[in-house]
Amino acid sequence: MALKTLTSTPILFLLLLGCAAASTSQARPRPCKRMVLYFHDILYNGHNSHNATSAIVGSPAWGDRVTLAGQNHFGNVVVFDDPITLDNNLHSPAVGRAQGIYLYEKKEVFTAWVRFSFVFNSTQHKGSINFAGAYPLMNKTRDISVLGGTGDFFMTRGVATLMTDAFEGEVYFRLRVDIKLYECW
Amino acid sequence: MALKTLTSTPILFLLLLGCAAASTSQARPRPCKRMVLYFHDILYNGHNSHNATSAIVGSPAWGDRVTLAGQNHFGNVVVFDDPITLDNNLHSPAVGRAQGIYLYEKKEVFTAWVRFSFVFNSTQHKGSINFAGAYPLMNKTRDISVLGGTGDFFMTRGVATLMTDAFEGEVYFRLRVDIKLYECW
Amino acid sequence: MALKTLTSTPILFLLLLGCAAASTSQARPRPCKRMVLYFHDILYNGHNSHNATSAIVGSPAWGDRVTLAGQNHFGNVVVFDDPITLDNNLHSPAVGRAQGIYLYEKKEVFTAWVRFSFVFNSTQHKGSINFAGAYPLMNKTRDISVLGGTGDFFMTRGVATLMTDAFEGEVYFRLRVDIKLYECW
Repeated sequence: MALKTLTSTPILFLLLLGCAAASTSQARPRPCKRMVLYFHDILYNGHNSHNATSAIVGSPAWGDRVTLAGQNHFGNVVVFDDPITLDNNLHSPAVGRAQGIYLYEKKEVFTAWVRFSFVFNSTQHKGSINFAGAYPLMNKTRDISVLGGTGDFFMTRGVATLMTDAFEGEVYFRLRVDIKLYECW
Repeated sequence: MALKTLTSTPILFLLLLGCAAASTSQARPRPCKRMVLYFHDILYNGHNSHNATSAIVGSPAWGDRVTLAGQNHFGNVVVFDDPITLDNNLHSPAVGRAQGIYLYEKKEVFTAWVRFSFVFNSTQHKGSINFAGAYPLMNKTRDISVLGGTGDFFMTRGVATLMTDAFEGEVYFRLRVDIKLYECW
Repeated sequence: MALKTLTSTPILFLLLLGCAAASTSQARPRPCKRMVLYFHDILYNGHNSHNATSAIVGSPAWGDRVTLAGQNHFGNVVVFDDPITLDNNLHSPAVGRAQGIYLYEKKEVFTAWVRFSFVFNSTQHKGSINFAGAYPLMNKTRDISVLGGTGDFFMTRGVATLMTDAFEGEVYFRLRVDIKLYECW
């Protein structure tokens, strides 16, 4: 019985700690999975249909679908299907595609609003992750939400930190995405 | 050992209760956080670009981008960047912005479908909350989902009850949003 | 005390198993709720406004709003309000509506990206479920995320497996949706 007393108490304690951490811990927990990836967006400008990965599909009355609208592009809706790479090289092999929409959101400063999915199809990962959030382009980094996933990312949740890693005028930009998952099933 | 028997049994019991509550409780729980906020939408109508906070960016073949389409506006896509206030006064200081899209969804009755983010930038709150749901405009109140958050609202989930608090023709409306969060990290 | 030893050890063991399953189990759990439903989409083509349930509301510069665009419809944005039925018959009584948007996403192969809500209004179910995901149309089945819900589906999460059950040219298609919920409050 002495042995039992010694072993069961720490187990109970750990168990209590574990349940507390799973439900209501106040301190930011450590991610159960973390990945840094890049994706590359080439906007259709009327002349680059061979390599464009995105296109304006909606615009306010004062815009069109080839040039981003005035007033900081407020109201432009862009659909994209961008390659995802492990490093910051556009020509590296794609491990998946980033698919979804972004909106330009403010008249005063550049702000984007995004809803997209990462669809993985590599030897490392199969499955998808769904993202959503608002994204002030002028901030150095910005957090958006990881809302769910499928396959290797079944039911996952978390936060992703986006950073504009490079851009060339209004045609090319590259985002660095630091994905921190806090629910891993 | 008598003491141990007395203490470990209730702890075990509470623990079992706790795990059950975290995973499958049937009764609706109490929110871990609750907030009531308002946001204000002024739709661009061709003449109000100085104070419009939203614009039609998509419409079906039978519509345009200045007037809401016929058939109860079915298919109109509106992008918005609306001020959020603590009370129902449009001119109160904004504590953040509601950014996203809404769609008009039905041909028979007015119905909206929304995907938006609250982006807070006040002394009280930093961070964002992401919402999604379908929204029959003719119902007095309607619940949508709170899918995730960042910053002060890290990983949150819940339900928000929307109510049209006021509207003026097709140009201005004000929504009351009662946010009930059930997962607070 | 012998009895206690015999009983408390399995309880502790079960408890550990239970907590592990709730937070980090590797094996896929059993759904807490499962439903198979169908929804039916009739795309507006310029001549069927009486029974169309969806309409093109955005398209790239090379498209219009009556005919799906070239390049595998890349960039077409479709808003829908489709009836949900319990079986695969378009004329069965609708138990709710599927409302949201889909995008055509790739230039090389047909791929869709969806964000939609099921809004139930039947004797069996009241409430809504929100879905999101990317959807390669050429795959036989594809998983998307169930991100949240309201009413009978309060705070739910899960995965839905979509399958194209039938299609007729570019005007009608029917999706079979196998909804597996893993978080039921």
